[in-house]
Amino acid sequence: MMGKGVLFDHARRERIGLPEAVFSEGKPFIVLKELLEDFSQKGPILFTRLAPEIFSQMSPQVKEAYDYDPVSQTAFVSTLPARDKSLTAAVVSAGSADSRVAREASRTLTYLGFPVSLIEDSGVAGLWRLSDALERINAHKVIIVVAGLDAALASVLGGLTPRPIIAVPTSVGYGVARGGRSALASMLLSCSPGITVTNIDNGYGAATAAARILNLLDSKTPPEAG
Amino acid sequence: MMGKGVLFDHARRERIGLPEAVFSEGKPFIVLKELLEDFSQKGPILFTRLAPEIFSQMSPQVKEAYDYDPVSQTAFVSTLPARDKSLTAAVVSAGSADSRVAREASRTLTYLGFPVSLIEDSGVAGLWRLSDALERINAHKVIIVVAGLDAALASVLGGLTPRPIIAVPTSVGYGVARGGRSALASMLLSCSPGITVTNIDNGYGAATAAARILNLLDSKTPPEAG
Amino acid sequence: MMGKGVLFDHARRERIGLPEAVFSEGKPFIVLKELLEDFSQKGPILFTRLAPEIFSQMSPQVKEAYDYDPVSQTAFVSTLPARDKSLTAAVVSAGSADSRVAREASRTLTYLGFPVSLIEDSGVAGLWRLSDALERINAHKVIIVVAGLDAALASVLGGLTPRPIIAVPTSVGYGVARGGRSALASMLLSCSPGITVTNIDNGYGAATAAARILNLLDSKTPPEAG
Amino acid sequence: MMGKGVLFDHARRERIGLPEAVFSEGKPFIVLKELLEDFSQKGPILFTRLAPEIFSQMSPQVKEAYDYDPVSQTAFVSTLPARDKSLTAAVVSAGSADSRVAREASRTLTYLGFPVSLIEDSGVAGLWRLSDALERINAHKVIIVVAGLDAALASVLGGLTPRPIIAVPTSVGYGVARGGRSALASMLLSCSPGITVTNIDNGYGAATAAARILNLLDSKTPPEAG
Amino acid sequence: MMGKGVLFDHARRERIGLPEAVFSEGKPFIVLKELLEDFSQKGPILFTRLAPEIFSQMSPQVKEAYDYDPVSQTAFVSTLPARDKSLTAAVVSAGSADSRVAREASRTLTYLGFPVSLIEDSGVAGLWRLSDALERINAHKVIIVVAGLDAALASVLGGLTPRPIIAVPTSVGYGVARGGRSALASMLLSCSPGITVTNIDNGYGAATAAARILNLLDSKTPPEAG
Amino acid sequence: MMGKGVLFDHARRERIGLPEAVFSEGKPFIVLKELLEDFSQKGPILFTRLAPEIFSQMSPQVKEAYDYDPVSQTAFVSTLPARDKSLTAAVVSAGSADSRVAREASRTLTYLGFPVSLIEDSGVAGLWRLSDALERINAHKVIIVVAGLDAALASVLGGLTPRPIIAVPTSVGYGVARGGRSALASMLLSCSPGITVTNIDNGYGAATAAARILNLLDSKTPPEAG
Amino acid sequence: MMGKGVLFDHARRERIGLPEAVFSEGKPFIVLKELLEDFSQKGPILFTRLAPEIFSQMSPQVKEAYDYDPVSQTAFVSTLPARDKSLTAAVVSAGSADSRVAREASRTLTYLGFPVSLIEDSGVAGLWRLSDALERINAHKVIIVVAGLDAALASVLGGLTPRPIIAVPTSVGYGVARGGRSALASMLLSCSPGITVTNIDNGYGAATAAARILNLLDSKTPPEAG
Amino acid sequence: MMGKGVLFDHARRERIGLPEAVFSEGKPFIVLKELLEDFSQKGPILFTRLAPEIFSQMSPQVKEAYDYDPVSQTAFVSTLPARDKSLTAAVVSAGSADSRVAREASRTLTYLGFPVSLIEDSGVAGLWRLSDALERINAHKVIIVVAGLDAALASVLGGLTPRPIIAVPTSVGYGVARGGRSALASMLLSCSPGITVTNIDNGYGAATAAARILNLLDSKTPPEAG
Repeated sequence: MMGKGVLFDHARRERIGLPEAVFSEGKPFIVLKELLEDFSQKGPILFTRLAPEIFSQMSPQVKEAYDYDPVSQTAFVSTLPARDKSLTAAVVSAGSADSRVAREASRTLTYLGFPVSLIEDSGVAGLWRLSDALERINAHKVIIVVAGLDAALASVLGGLTPRPIIAVPTSVGYGVARGGRSALASMLLSCSPGITVTNIDNGYGAATAAARILNLLDSKTPPEAG
Repeated sequence: MMGKGVLFDHARRERIGLPEAVFSEGKPFIVLKELLEDFSQKGPILFTRLAPEIFSQMSPQVKEAYDYDPVSQTAFVSTLPARDKSLTAAVVSAGSADSRVAREASRTLTYLGFPVSLIEDSGVAGLWRLSDALERINAHKVIIVVAGLDAALASVLGGLTPRPIIAVPTSVGYGVARGGRSALASMLLSCSPGITVTNIDNGYGAATAAARILNLLDSKTPPEAG
Repeated sequence: MMGKGVLFDHARRERIGLPEAVFSEGKPFIVLKELLEDFSQKGPILFTRLAPEIFSQMSPQVKEAYDYDPVSQTAFVSTLPARDKSLTAAVVSAGSADSRVAREASRTLTYLGFPVSLIEDSGVAGLWRLSDALERINAHKVIIVVAGLDAALASVLGGLTPRPIIAVPTSVGYGVARGGRSALASMLLSCSPGITVTNIDNGYGAATAAARILNLLDSKTPPEAG
Repeated sequence: MMGKGVLFDHARRERIGLPEAVFSEGKPFIVLKELLEDFSQKGPILFTRLAPEIFSQMSPQVKEAYDYDPVSQTAFVSTLPARDKSLTAAVVSAGSADSRVAREASRTLTYLGFPVSLIEDSGVAGLWRLSDALERINAHKVIIVVAGLDAALASVLGGLTPRPIIAVPTSVGYGVARGGRSALASMLLSCSPGITVTNIDNGYGAATAAARILNLLDSKTPPEAG
Repeated sequence: MMGKGVLFDHARRERIGLPEAVFSEGKPFIVLKELLEDFSQKGPILFTRLAPEIFSQMSPQVKEAYDYDPVSQTAFVSTLPARDKSLTAAVVSAGSADSRVAREASRTLTYLGFPVSLIEDSGVAGLWRLSDALERINAHKVIIVVAGLDAALASVLGGLTPRPIIAVPTSVGYGVARGGRSALASMLLSCSPGITVTNIDNGYGAATAAARILNLLDSKTPPEAG
Repeated sequence: MMGKGVLFDHARRERIGLPEAVFSEGKPFIVLKELLEDFSQKGPILFTRLAPEIFSQMSPQVKEAYDYDPVSQTAFVSTLPARDKSLTAAVVSAGSADSRVAREASRTLTYLGFPVSLIEDSGVAGLWRLSDALERINAHKVIIVVAGLDAALASVLGGLTPRPIIAVPTSVGYGVARGGRSALASMLLSCSPGITVTNIDNGYGAATAAARILNLLDSKTPPEAG
Repeated sequence: MMGKGVLFDHARRERIGLPEAVFSEGKPFIVLKELLEDFSQKGPILFTRLAPEIFSQMSPQVKEAYDYDPVSQTAFVSTLPARDKSLTAAVVSAGSADSRVAREASRTLTYLGFPVSLIEDSGVAGLWRLSDALERINAHKVIIVVAGLDAALASVLGGLTPRPIIAVPTSVGYGVARGGRSALASMLLSCSPGITVTNIDNGYGAATAAARILNLLDSKTPPEAG
Repeated sequence: MMGKGVLFDHARRERIGLPEAVFSEGKPFIVLKELLEDFSQKGPILFTRLAPEIFSQMSPQVKEAYDYDPVSQTAFVSTLPARDKSLTAAVVSAGSADSRVAREASRTLTYLGFPVSLIEDSGVAGLWRLSDALERINAHKVIIVVAGLDAALASVLGGLTPRPIIAVPTSVGYGVARGGRSALASMLLSCSPGITVTNIDNGYGAATAAARILNLLDSKTPPEAG
């Protein structure tokens, strides 16, 4: 969390290779307004969970300055410097209802400078869609899987790819979906080995976890510990 | 529930096409002993959840009279009359840890007179196993799917077969498996349409649900309502 | 899930005997608008969970083209070809609060071409209502039971009919109803044998499960596996 | 709770018409031993949840002094003075698995001096059993209903009798039964009006609630407030 | 549930001594409008959970015909015939936040013809308030206790009165109150014996349970079973 | 946690005024054996949750060296130096079933050098017991309240004393007690202001929280920060 | 709870050293309006959870009379008399999303007359912020820690300070945050000894708990028991 | 799952770079005996969750053939070929109670051929221990964090290292620990970005997830997709 009257964790990028971002949900309008205006000048910053009805009330200058995506509810003035083009990630999702989360993940990776592919509509009820996309998926270094409901996509893909898989459960569904907690459990219980999981709907968390892996592969990564 | 000093629902089979069975878990030893001795003479009855450590304490006559299976923990003296050989069911399970439940389902169908195939080790982490078995599975009229953990098998199979599917979650797993409640949720949330579900570990319930469907297909079925 | 910019699972009907449908809840307005316009020309498709406040914003042409039912929140241009008239299902519900779900089930069966009877107000607090309707209910091949609160209707009916029973819990109730999870548990725990269950409020799921059974009974059913 | 070294609530009976009882579960062996020996002389007291493996270790004098019932796990030396014979209660249970709880209720009423009838095996899967017993049940002043699993018996009986109904959920069942919490929810959500509920397995609580009602009906009841 | 196009359980009062009532929540506006107009002529009926914003949209004739209380959200044209004046109930609540539920209980008893006293602000944080009211409370035949949060009032009162106690947990509170489930648990776990409980916020259920008891005390009660 | 092959947090007492203690549950026998032998020489240390069946297997030297209390399952060779005699705490519990936890709290305070009074059997079903003890309770500086089931004791006492109150829920009870989580919720929801709570059964945690308060009152307390 | 037509617990301050306050959430507008007008004359009172949209509808006189803080949603006309200036508390919070709760705690202490410091943005993801503030924090007598999400701040600070720590979990977060219940659990499970906890978002409760401790330190405190 | 009579997923290593392993818990003794004997000849295989009381019943040949570790409950005859020595992982745990899980992770990595360091006793109650170890931890490529209770270690370490972090919650703790589900939630809710999580106690899952990352870094890794 940061802001004008707020104590920045300015050294975060040097310490862990990831800059601070602004989680907008729940922040008062006046604080968001100040932050958006302030950073429209100051350089790269990522806003997540910035709702369209909030962003639409900003000044024309702010609206023009930012690259805002209403589906993922993310905004940034510019991305961080592009990383090595081999450091790619794939974001694979089950259906269009998962778009907000899948795009939060892909937009965060774009902001961090990593090339990313978004592959939607891969639900296992029609397995041929996943089979057709498998070679393309495996051409990336890291895979983020986004799914709600039964989240079976994570297990099926986990049995088909050697890549690191970060699974993001979504709150899609009703009844026993319990706001995504059943999808979360399915992913944690995957019968395929070596799958790790983030909080429900946390596309940003999956992207930063992918970035930690991709940073490892890059000899030029600035943040080097110890 | 039934027994010597118990009020029988003797008309159940005429009313709904399914005879009463003895759910043994929790019944006092003396009651089970009387019931097992009594029915060793009287004709067909099914005992479920009859633990090996209980059955092993019975008299030699009882042990000899019954066909007892320690894996499924089921016992019967003889099966009901064989039904039409086209009235088949397949029981498909994810792994060997699901055996108790899968075999409770298949043994119950056997007891009721229906031909049944048991197809184990079909977990989706190695999808080729399910693909190889698909034609064989589809040759049956009704399919019972038994799985724990993420229960992804139900969704994948649901997208590959036109048959009625009865899904049985199992209590296999630890941590967020929560005694099978996560598998139950996965099955209820299946992205494949038309899958129905029983209580956790309820192989008997799945078999009797399959029997209600198979009874429909049989012009000779005795129980015909109103 | 499907749409103009979406990857269709066009082979689903051939594979499993059930066509794709559009689950409308949570889809952006613009996507629903395109899909409704597109399919107003193209032929039969079912929209579920399409809220009246969304549908009322569509163009006059769309509104005229579709058979829209605001209670069940379902829409279709035309039904699929009528099936054999013996392939009937009954939808039995406990009270008028269950109407949205009960009618989602009956409208889905109508769309799929199956004759269906809807029998409401059968709650067990006044058992004579169910007794009076029993003969009529048993004249159908498959029974869908829809109930919230204590969901006792499923157990009582399960002890009175030999038909396959698909139970749908509803989110009707407050306090310990927990959005339908208590009704779901009651149905899964039914003391009557052979009852299977869908997710809470999932009338569509129950109807497609019924269709899998009815398809079995029809020698002319197009989808035949393997 | 009481004992030799314990602070008695000796005025409880005068205050609320119900004497203290000893809940034995979890009490150390030495404390139970002292209490049982002490009260074998002193006059009427009720022990509940006194397990057979504990009671069997007591001295011959204690074993002889007490009327101990291993099914309900209750013990008393003698009952309280008999109450007016019109002050009757019926305990109706779904199946033999509910016996421990049903008999804890009926034995507590017996101890308190009230005539009681125990009617078991009344599960709604075979409704005729309940119909046959209805007139006999209604001849009592208060009804205690004991059931696990879906607990549908409470709702069905609630629609058939004008008597006060106290429903006791039991921990019978597995999977989503969740130790009786699903039965508890079903009873709290009963579609029949005016049913009240106790904690899971709390036959003692139901009996004392019935006693509060029966005390109201008795002009000779000693405890009269204010 | 009832209505013009609905199947009445008209014999309920004869069977169980309690007439049907209209639970209004979730019913469509048009149905409620018809029912309110219809019964403004036909005689006594009770509407519960009828929100002020719904009732305010009714015609002037309807508004004038009904005795509507916006706090309890209940309405009736007239009460049922007055019962014997000794058949009294007290409704005791912890604080003013419990008013909706406490008054739903007292208004239902008034509608059913029973004299009732409402005693609010009796929370145990200031015990003297309850002590001061105790004699007055004990002058009634049945006590309904209404409380949210920790619901300690039920236990304290349960140790001070010999009367039947029906405890109603409310959804008052936040955080671990979990919509009243913690208050429900406290009441079910009361250390005072013989307390029974209804669903959360179910003032109507408590009043009908009280009515079952009061009916017992009345030799003139019309409903007499079997 | 500490031990011979373990990394001690030796500076804890200097930093926060509380020494490390050994939580014994779950530690391997061999580790506990080494620790008990080692500290029988080295000076004061507190072992908690040290089960009698473990301690009974230790050598005679160890058994003799330690002051072991099987009820609270705590052991120490000697206490820390006695603190000012005005720094007193009262531990008040609802019933004898709470003894393990109440005594873990009082023994921990004794070990830390603080005078402590243990007042048991204060459940609110017989309020006079608490009223009688109130003046004695208020003579202490800090109060620890220990209760299971409905935990109403915390709220009642909270309305009667100005002292800091630390409430400890216990796992006493069955059914909806849910291992103490309902008691925990009741305490967190107390209608009396200013009550704080520890984890279920955590008598040690309550005692160390009391010690933090008592340390404040002692001008001679060694640990002084910053 | 209090009001014009309400039964005051006027003796609370004398009994427990803390005056009653008005919890505004859920109270009807008319009641709040009367209370605010009434107390604008009568002297000090604290309103908590008084939403800005409610307060903004009050008369100009009321708005002028009160010191209203829209972030904490608290109001008072004047504070209670200032206490000894050594009786200080620190409120430490993890991030700006916790402001409502942190300020409810600090405003309550201000109202009660205690000096208080508010130290925000101390989340452990950037530990240096907490290290930098530690000496300042330790200069206070009591510490209130406010955090949501993983609530790790409580454990880290608990290992660094000897002061009494009252931890307040907040409902900040989504997914498995479950409205603050996960933060609550983390705080109850803290690996640092002697931390106690309040209900989720209960800044008022933490402040009154701190006041109970600070009252202990003040020889001039008016409320003295027994 | 595999075995003599079991369907092997023999191609798993080629497909995803990870061989099958035998999850022993719940497998019948006879099956485990056969598998252990069989693989004592056949070459490398990993057994997890193989309890000491099971392994101790095996033949002397089996016991001699295997490298069995009773703490982690893992067994293998030999490890897979050693990987590049730069492909290192650190396993960091909070306390000795987490040993079973921490060592399951480290032993699995050893079996897979990766160098691994195990760093225990790093709980945040004494932060200096983690600070002292930080440089050593950061010298590894991937970090596995193992903690129960509040699991605060994951968040603190996540703010101090740029490495990929895989967090494993453990079932250590009681009360609200809920078998590790609170630790799981804390880790999913970490305020430090880019942390991913496995199921409770799943050290094997964390190790295989680490292996997927380490495989990426190794140009010689055999499994290469597509």
